[in-house]
Amino acid sequence: MREKPQILKRHTLARTRLFHIEELELRFANGVVTHYERLLSPSAGAVLVVPLLENGSVLLVREYAAGVDRYELSFLKGRIEAGEEILAAAHREMTEEIGHGALELRHITSMTLAPGYIGHQTHVVLARQLYPERSQGDEPEEIEVVPWPLDRFSELLKREDFTEARSIAALFMIRELVQHG
Amino acid sequence: MREKPQILKRHTLARTRLFHIEELELRFANGVVTHYERLLSPSAGAVLVVPLLENGSVLLVREYAAGVDRYELSFLKGRIEAGEEILAAAHREMTEEIGHGALELRHITSMTLAPGYIGHQTHVVLARQLYPERSQGDEPEEIEVVPWPLDRFSELLKREDFTEARSIAALFMIRELVQHG
Repeated sequence: MREKPQILKRHTLARTRLFHIEELELRFANGVVTHYERLLSPSAGAVLVVPLLENGSVLLVREYAAGVDRYELSFLKGRIEAGEEILAAAHREMTEEIGHGALELRHITSMTLAPGYIGHQTHVVLARQLYPERSQGDEPEEIEVVPWPLDRFSELLKREDFTEARSIAALFMIRELVQHG
Repeated sequence: MREKPQILKRHTLARTRLFHIEELELRFANGVVTHYERLLSPSAGAVLVVPLLENGSVLLVREYAAGVDRYELSFLKGRIEAGEEILAAAHREMTEEIGHGALELRHITSMTLAPGYIGHQTHVVLARQLYPERSQGDEPEEIEVVPWPLDRFSELLKREDFTEARSIAALFMIRELVQHG
């Protein structure tokens, strides 16, 4: 295993409500000194929840995505609040975004977005045994919930509004899990 | 289909070498006005390349990832330069990062990272029929190339240094493609 580069200096370049950009000066094991910019994660990370129904469908949400300025289909996601557990955050986000809780919640894996320059972590949670429960979120409009049968999987992958790498990876993982236990 | 929110105002909050943060004022179809922050993509997007060998292995790279401050395994990636085609960028990045070109390059799909607040697009390219060809990149240290047999797929998914959602999604897609054509 290679020795990790040494962080010689770090300082904040910009900080907004949502983003925190930092510059690093690094010395690699071979002596090369270089500068990197990275986005620090402003929170304890995020959850991505895959609600799986007994009939073999998953629940997606269709939401306005400001980064690409269009409506996108994806799994529901949300930030973990300070001090909140992963599964508690998943449950809260479910009740806010799709009006359901779940009796069974399971942390499947944790993913990064672009580890080269973003520190952000997303925890994938599988939710089963759903029941109606709604709490108030801060969404500007009601979120459309879209059930999608897992056996129409490849059709979903071809859609132009299902592009998020985290949702694609989570979809494959859950399908694998359902097929092979 | 819902009517898209109207962008009432937009202005730059911060701009660094790598990042451009913008604030949007949006009015949703239901009349609600709200503010969003987003990261604009500074370039024509990025490529992620999956080099597939005749023996059924893919080539990964092990690289220092400043966002998470550790070495990570992933598929090779790089920015598309101004005016450059997707496949040309994929080929250039291959020669810089793993010292190989490819006779066959195919654009498989395009993914987003976190479309709610990041505009960034990544184009997944499958590369076959590799041959040695090296050009000089700007990497601070030599990149370690790690061949991985596709049939040891689930072992890769369990590794703590293979976490990038784009690479996980691309791995599943390429495996699907190899299995079902």
